[in-house]
Amino acid sequence: METLESFVAGEWIRGSGTPHALHNPTTEEKIAETSTAGIEFRRAVDHARDEGGKNLRAMTFAERGDVLRAMSRVIHASRDALIELAILNGGNTRSDAKFDIDGASGTLAYYAELGKELGSQKFLLDGDGIQLGRSPRFFGQHVLLPRRGVAVHINAFNFPGWGFAEKAACALLAGMPVVTKPATSTALLAFRMMKLFDEAKCLPRGALSFVAGSAGDLLSHLGGQDVIAFTGSSDTGSIIRLMPNLQKASVRINVEADSLNAAVLGPDVPPGSDTYRMFLNDVARDVTQKAGQKCTAIRRVFVSKDQLAQVQGDLLDRLREAKVGDPAADGVTVGPLATAQQKRDVTAGIELLAKEAAVVLGSGPFERVGVTGDKGYFVPPTLLVSEAPETLARVHDHEVFGPVATLMATSGRAADVAALVARGGGGLVSSVYSDDREFAADMIFEIGPWHGRLVMGSEKLSDQMPGPGTVLPHTIHGGPGRAGGGEELGGARGLAFYSQRTAVQGSRPILEAILGKKENKA
Amino acid sequence: METLESFVAGEWIRGSGTPHALHNPTTEEKIAETSTAGIEFRRAVDHARDEGGKNLRAMTFAERGDVLRAMSRVIHASRDALIELAILNGGNTRSDAKFDIDGASGTLAYYAELGKELGSQKFLLDGDGIQLGRSPRFFGQHVLLPRRGVAVHINAFNFPGWGFAEKAACALLAGMPVVTKPATSTALLAFRMMKLFDEAKCLPRGALSFVAGSAGDLLSHLGGQDVIAFTGSSDTGSIIRLMPNLQKASVRINVEADSLNAAVLGPDVPPGSDTYRMFLNDVARDVTQKAGQKCTAIRRVFVSKDQLAQVQGDLLDRLREAKVGDPAADGVTVGPLATAQQKRDVTAGIELLAKEAAVVLGSGPFERVGVTGDKGYFVPPTLLVSEAPETLARVHDHEVFGPVATLMATSGRAADVAALVARGGGGLVSSVYSDDREFAADMIFEIGPWHGRLVMGSEKLSDQMPGPGTVLPHTIHGGPGRAGGGEELGGARGLAFYSQRTAVQGSRPILEAILGKKENKA
Repeated sequence: METLESFVAGEWIRGSGTPHALHNPTTEEKIAETSTAGIEFRRAVDHARDEGGKNLRAMTFAERGDVLRAMSRVIHASRDALIELAILNGGNTRSDAKFDIDGASGTLAYYAELGKELGSQKFLLDGDGIQLGRSPRFFGQHVLLPRRGVAVHINAFNFPGWGFAEKAACALLAGMPVVTKPATSTALLAFRMMKLFDEAKCLPRGALSFVAGSAGDLLSHLGGQDVIAFTGSSDTGSIIRLMPNLQKASVRINVEADSLNAAVLGPDVPPGSDTYRMFLNDVARDVTQKAGQKCTAIRRVFVSKDQLAQVQGDLLDRLREAKVGDPAADGVTVGPLATAQQKRDVTAGIELLAKEAAVVLGSGPFERVGVTGDKGYFVPPTLLVSEAPETLARVHDHEVFGPVATLMATSGRAADVAALVARGGGGLVSSVYSDDREFAADMIFEIGPWHGRLVMGSEKLSDQMPGPGTVLPHTIHGGPGRAGGGEELGGARGLAFYSQRTAVQGSRPILEAILGKKENKA
Repeated sequence: METLESFVAGEWIRGSGTPHALHNPTTEEKIAETSTAGIEFRRAVDHARDEGGKNLRAMTFAERGDVLRAMSRVIHASRDALIELAILNGGNTRSDAKFDIDGASGTLAYYAELGKELGSQKFLLDGDGIQLGRSPRFFGQHVLLPRRGVAVHINAFNFPGWGFAEKAACALLAGMPVVTKPATSTALLAFRMMKLFDEAKCLPRGALSFVAGSAGDLLSHLGGQDVIAFTGSSDTGSIIRLMPNLQKASVRINVEADSLNAAVLGPDVPPGSDTYRMFLNDVARDVTQKAGQKCTAIRRVFVSKDQLAQVQGDLLDRLREAKVGDPAADGVTVGPLATAQQKRDVTAGIELLAKEAAVVLGSGPFERVGVTGDKGYFVPPTLLVSEAPETLARVHDHEVFGPVATLMATSGRAADVAALVARGGGGLVSSVYSDDREFAADMIFEIGPWHGRLVMGSEKLSDQMPGPGTVLPHTIHGGPGRAGGGEELGGARGLAFYSQRTAVQGSRPILEAILGKKENKA
């Protein structure tokens, strides 16, 4: 039995008190335990701010990028061992595990390259300099300077690898030290990554701390230069944001939460076309991949009334091909949910949706490949159908975080479809599949403001796009309203959250000498 | 006696119930009253979202800019009448009143010009398009789309004109309808402006609503596409941010709050030099202008130990020239504070600071030009001095919102000065006066992250810079930590708060056709 440790104030520490157990979701066996009781979180954040912040700020972007590159390589070098851990503790299939782990190393590598491009600077100029008075001498330049606090990262159970990396890459490259906390239930992978980073000595002292479980009183020690990036449920996000000490000090808080992501099939798209196949692939993948435990997974599928029967039939064919069971077993495409609690929540969520929409797949007994008895937190791919989506409530506002989607029929008119999509109250990503440019344009402008990202599927793209569920570091991740109102990644945009934008006003020659001219920095 | 009305859902409405009184702070006479009881705020926000949002989104940036230009001209055309109201209800001197009113018309005119530059677009592209896959066909473009909600603006009592305009200009240009609420105590000016806009019919239906007093249950009707921009005290800012319905829906909230702005005199600056005079002018102006009721006013003045006596003498000479009294009277440079409550708060604040630092000006009786008896909310220019600023507490964390500053002696070493400035916990703006480039650079990098704006005073600039107290629309306004963590203005940056950044992914030719190419937009 492994006991996880935390890495804070430059030391590995084993918590005291009653430990939390980590399980194998396939067998329900306990495989590790952890506790963070007794950790002095004030010391942890002071160390990160004082040592880590100082060390990172002394480095150029290129040097910080080198740190990220080293981290990426460490992960890649231990890829097989990490995949085994993701299967063991996360219930991931091998393919799911690669999605998480390669996502982590890929995102770190992407930001390593950005660091290289930014080169010998230590901070960013923001926009061009501006003449502020009648004479060209009075001048203004916005700069993005690393904040002087600590970045606390609270990650979700579903992506212990990628979730860590996408947040840490932006903070470290911006010059802010990180205290990262994985979800306790699937912390084994992140813990092993942290051990590997430490053994490889790829990070400057204080730049990365690791809390192996409960955050204790960590958030009570944060102030006006600190930031929190949280991924998880809306409810927990609200609890954090309603902490008076955080709001009093204007601690920056980025929340990435629930999302009722939609997929819209344009009424113009004929069955069997490239665009249709792309739509079908994306929906089927999002129901099955990571057993539907992706914040970006398609939950609501909108097709026009006359497409419904065909789509339902084709989707059922695809989803019936899925094999549920031991993720280590050959041919299994859908592993268990990550925890017993998730299984309870998803089961209850399906019951809730079933009061509004018809369950056409997923009810009753199902086969579990390679599993004996009824052990394991399995939920089969589940499809619900409704012909009156405008009358539904919970389908639009209750995220069921498992292999579950609801197929709905609409009039096919852009305005009607957009109104239904907006019923989700703000999402991370929705996808539209259409070769009708007018329909596509209407959808962009009508549903765009409700999303952080839109994926526009069309012919000649079907073999080139990874689907809406894949978060690319080039473009932002986050969404308004129910999705938390946050924004991460997006290339250099991802650094702004960890920086203070400051307008410096003064004499043009002096500011250019101190800050560097824009053209010297590009 | 004038009774103020609100303009909501396209109609002027007089509130029922017991009214709040507005006073002349010079005479303490009641001059107007207002109530918002009985106003249906749900209807007000629905109307703004449905009518105002639709109308604004249908307009190009150039057309929205034309609206702002018309508003600017309406204000300028009634400048004299508005100045009289600012004297009557705000206790402004004529010069103070111009600062507010010309700030309003100037900011609207600035954003009118920006609208003209942005031309026939209706939304903004954000950055360049990005190739996302191996083939150039898979493409991403970030866009800034107008949010589909309403922008609620809650303004402070000190700038009823400019405070309204700097928020409204950004929201309207971005394509979001505004519900604006002045502080009740000085609402007369904003009310008259709103009447003028309505009479001139410069705004599309629903684009601007006006709440003449208490906001009632307005904030309880907001959702995930709405935003709040608040200027006022940290305490009120926290109360708003801790409203569960707002955090649950991720309503965007911008807070601009308390700020212990610093002025730093470089140890290199000799008395009598241009840079020294600039420093002296800025400090003296910020103590007296608007009777110190500017969120950007200098509260803490840091000089080196060997500069202290000279600066103290010169500052006292300057501040003793100030004439307190009826702002309408000839020669008066310091009017009353805006309200009886402000006078109580400032008096109590001075007592608090006086426990730590010596009051060298402002205690005891003082002359009031043109005022009979002891009427009026007057506080004289007050200067405190300390030779041990590192031992003080309240001077660094308690904003006294009146004609009050504390002069402090430091070692003159950049690191020591920066640590003292940072004790303010985050501010809107600080200013540094030095011709030592190394000192200036150290200050930018050390105190920059604690501020939204830095003003770097140096020789050859003294007659060209308006001082740190003036907020220019070109550069951002806001600051981290205690200052609220917000950001307004900054040219086109000011539109982002009212927009949703959305990453659109898809086929390059299709997205370029729908969204327009970057090069066509510049």
